[in-house]
Amino acid sequence: MKKLALSLFLFTAFLQAQTQDEQMLRKLYTTALTDSKCYAWLEHLSNTIGQRMSGSDGAAKGVLYTQKELEALGLDRVFLQEVMVPKWVRGAKETAYIVDKKNKTEVPICALGGSVATPKQGITAEVVEVHTLKELEILGEDKLKGKIVFYNRPMEPENIDAFVSYGRCGDQRRAGAMEASKFGAVGVIVRSLNLRSDDFPHTGATSYGDLIDEQKIPAAAISTNGADLLSRKLKANPHLQFYMKLSCQSLGEVLSHNVIGEIKGTEHPERIMVVGGHLDSWDLGDGSHDDGAGCVQSMAVLEFFKKLQYKPKNTIRVVLYMNEEFGGKGGKKYEELSKANNENHIFALESDAGGFSPRGFSFECDDANFAKINGWKPLFEPYLIHNFFKGHTGSDIHPLTSEKIVKAGLRPDSQRYFDYHHAANDTFDAINKRELELGAATMAALVYLFDQYGID
Amino acid sequence: MKKLALSLFLFTAFLQAQTQDEQMLRKLYTTALTDSKCYAWLEHLSNTIGQRMSGSDGAAKGVLYTQKELEALGLDRVFLQEVMVPKWVRGAKETAYIVDKKNKTEVPICALGGSVATPKQGITAEVVEVHTLKELEILGEDKLKGKIVFYNRPMEPENIDAFVSYGRCGDQRRAGAMEASKFGAVGVIVRSLNLRSDDFPHTGATSYGDLIDEQKIPAAAISTNGADLLSRKLKANPHLQFYMKLSCQSLGEVLSHNVIGEIKGTEHPERIMVVGGHLDSWDLGDGSHDDGAGCVQSMAVLEFFKKLQYKPKNTIRVVLYMNEEFGGKGGKKYEELSKANNENHIFALESDAGGFSPRGFSFECDDANFAKINGWKPLFEPYLIHNFFKGHTGSDIHPLTSEKIVKAGLRPDSQRYFDYHHAANDTFDAINKRELELGAATMAALVYLFDQYGID
Repeated sequence: MKKLALSLFLFTAFLQAQTQDEQMLRKLYTTALTDSKCYAWLEHLSNTIGQRMSGSDGAAKGVLYTQKELEALGLDRVFLQEVMVPKWVRGAKETAYIVDKKNKTEVPICALGGSVATPKQGITAEVVEVHTLKELEILGEDKLKGKIVFYNRPMEPENIDAFVSYGRCGDQRRAGAMEASKFGAVGVIVRSLNLRSDDFPHTGATSYGDLIDEQKIPAAAISTNGADLLSRKLKANPHLQFYMKLSCQSLGEVLSHNVIGEIKGTEHPERIMVVGGHLDSWDLGDGSHDDGAGCVQSMAVLEFFKKLQYKPKNTIRVVLYMNEEFGGKGGKKYEELSKANNENHIFALESDAGGFSPRGFSFECDDANFAKINGWKPLFEPYLIHNFFKGHTGSDIHPLTSEKIVKAGLRPDSQRYFDYHHAANDTFDAINKRELELGAATMAALVYLFDQYGID
Repeated sequence: MKKLALSLFLFTAFLQAQTQDEQMLRKLYTTALTDSKCYAWLEHLSNTIGQRMSGSDGAAKGVLYTQKELEALGLDRVFLQEVMVPKWVRGAKETAYIVDKKNKTEVPICALGGSVATPKQGITAEVVEVHTLKELEILGEDKLKGKIVFYNRPMEPENIDAFVSYGRCGDQRRAGAMEASKFGAVGVIVRSLNLRSDDFPHTGATSYGDLIDEQKIPAAAISTNGADLLSRKLKANPHLQFYMKLSCQSLGEVLSHNVIGEIKGTEHPERIMVVGGHLDSWDLGDGSHDDGAGCVQSMAVLEFFKKLQYKPKNTIRVVLYMNEEFGGKGGKKYEELSKANNENHIFALESDAGGFSPRGFSFECDDANFAKINGWKPLFEPYLIHNFFKGHTGSDIHPLTSEKIVKAGLRPDSQRYFDYHHAANDTFDAINKRELELGAATMAALVYLFDQYGID
């Protein structure tokens, strides 16, 4: 009888908790959809400030604006963290032509982030098309010296998660120039990491590794339509030439900032839960999806808690990281200072996959915590959030280490992300207000649940 | 021991079936994402043919084009079904002004489908803003006679499924004119059924019920921004006037067609499984999402089966219905002829909720079949299809009755649908190729499973 009473008590407690959690999630989603500033914040970041490339005026304006808006939320603390970031500028718009006998066909290209410029008059060379970095070894210096290497491995359309396709092609952009240089190539062009056929070249960081300046060769992305055209023309005339001119340059390091705001925990103020995105963007569009969306969603998590007068047990901190795109200095600096200050992070959530309809989260955690998270699935189902899996969470929270920490990444619908990613069309008109807000609510729901129930 | 052997046998059979089904679904999704015509079909329907309003040249061209494309698939039979449809034309672009003392402010409106025109010089009257049809009774003829009734109940932003919000506002558009006429109103304007603040008026059918011609009053939709402006101005000046001019007219009934193609069943050719969308659209955009997407996805289901040389047990029929938007004559005619021909339909699936990322299906079926469907969930999970629920499936398959029939509606992500629905921005550029293809694959997967395992 005692046992039955205990069971009943526990069952009732369980039901009440369920009901409380259900109510809290409903409040979070309703607040997001009816009474959040997150869309207006993004409108300002995107349309008034514009691109926020590391070290740019836009980035500095983004820091001041988000600091001011966080202060207006009445948080317990808002502050900046100094961080030195590399500054690279694109210079004049790039030009490129396919030179096929007497015909010149212009194609859309853009310099990859970190690339060196071409000489002022540009470079002209024959083109060698490859699909993998390994092919370079087979071809050797013999076939590659003095040539432009054209990396043309497309993203695989058959994967359901577009990030899987992205992951399998990224080496061309990140390491293509460094590797081709070793075989005497004079430049590289890389098929844009885009699943769609269009005319937008997609930039992104390239690395020269340990190469000395003399070995660095210019690297550009070409639009998917441009890549297809070049590939077709190469089949007809393997000796056609490619002309490109890049005017970009690296300007050393400059001072920038991470922006941080927090609500102090009522029970465990020393336990920190981070929610964040990155404030810097590429320079071609205005970085609405990458990652203005993640910034305003992270800010909105604290906005919702303030509006709903939710007093977290743990300290909830929003961090807008600087320089994710181009060195990740903000994430590293945050971790460095966290270590120096003996901070204890129990949880970190990043939104850096676009402001699309949320589908779930990726997690880096042990099995016990993953089981716990899966136990919360019924709470998320009314909001059509189902997709919980273990995998990469976020570049900015990656450096964070603690003995015990659960990391999570918001996983929105991935189908449209690479239409915009790192390209001139990553602009505010590509944002749907409701999708953005639903993502913010979904993040807040996860933060709430971990705040309530802790990590194992 | 015998029992164990039997268990092992059953378990192995189960695993093999699972594996076969898993493989078939993977093939369907890969075919959709790499080797389908569905996006090219929609491009033609939208950009070359354009709007396909019932009774229009575009609708006739749509019939011929889809018939030809279905024939090119090498189906067992492609045919047309004659159906008489109402023809209504918009005429000259509508104009409307808020007349506030001496200031005229133009606002975007469009006639509702089926509306009568205003007199040539337009109408000008004071405006009474209401939020429900019931308010008319409270206000009475006293307050409404000679006035324009302005229905301004917005779609609720807090619902996760945007169709729920749509359902709760549709009465204003469908019945608003009929009801206001009974109280002597001279016209109605209806807030567009759109969750976003923008300048697109959204049309849609309105009904006068049994009203005689003299009682029919002109009815227009106003954009959400226009509605908000009018409401604000009315608060400042309740006696402002509204001017509108509509030039639409009804031109009786004309001959049109449903387009049908089928693959004959190998085991039960007499059992018919229908998959369809509606070929007609509204006239403001080109009907890419509503419902060009549903048509090409339905065609693609048969395309995939032909490409994969899948021989269905039951007859699989694609039906492109005519006149869903404006009377539903195609769906009714299909059912009428099906009855006359003693056809046995066991399953019907409609896609009429936009070409967005698929999330699941709604079902009209008994509990046994719903349990069976839920048993298939693990097969759909790799494709992020989770949302199976009982509810409205599709207007065109609604008339279909059989003793035993399972009906299903594809449920794509609903967040963006009402940004475009029935408006001038429902155009091809709002379609994402991958989202469209994923929807088609998801439909094919469900058709395959019901074909394999039948209905209970």
